[in-house]
Amino acid sequence: MSEDCLFCKIVNKEIPSTIVYEDEDILAFKDINPVAPVHILIIPKKHIPTITDITDDDFELIGRMHAVAGKIARDAGIFEDGFRLVNNCRSHGGQVIYHLHFHLLGGKNLGGI
Amino acid sequence: MSEDCLFCKIVNKEIPSTIVYEDEDILAFKDINPVAPVHILIIPKKHIPTITDITDDDFELIGRMHAVAGKIARDAGIFEDGFRLVNNCRSHGGQVIYHLHFHLLGGKNLGGI
Repeated sequence: MSEDCLFCKIVNKEIPSTIVYEDEDILAFKDINPVAPVHILIIPKKHIPTITDITDDDFELIGRMHAVAGKIARDAGIFEDGFRLVNNCRSHGGQVIYHLHFHLLGGKNLGGI
Repeated sequence: MSEDCLFCKIVNKEIPSTIVYEDEDILAFKDINPVAPVHILIIPKKHIPTITDITDDDFELIGRMHAVAGKIARDAGIFEDGFRLVNNCRSHGGQVIYHLHFHLLGGKNLGGI
């Protein structure tokens, strides 16, 4: 855990969130400023600042986070229509919180990137 | 390989592409219709239609594709400024080619999602 990290505090339930999925290593909760009808953040429970900070030991976790995205999409009723996963890395990517997260966006046709 | 798949044909070098990374399992090449100064597609060599088609055996591969994104970003000189990774899944996600791919976008400030 990183003491000043908002998402670590959400993992530790020090800050409330609307959790849609949780297991030993992964947490997913609703974005408080949604940009689509479905907007979920999927994060590792352990503090990894950005996607470029992953090590070989994290590959399995990153892959499993993508399987979790599919499960969340199914639960949200957007599995068949589809969705978009976005990871923003550092300033040009638009990363705001430096705790790795994937945005799961859906519930409407998102158009081109 | 899927016979009618454009990306499988790129993997097999039946269709030319500007390759920026290749190993036994992963290929990355420039998008022919870039939407950012750096726009690379990172794909598994084996045919996986969408991110929801991955199995437990693919988790390591998916994770490693994200490490490859970091390597490509470094080679492209956009590592420090950052980048965005996007996976479009099915129609609402805007998926066009049904062979799993991550868009790596960078080279400018991409703004919010």
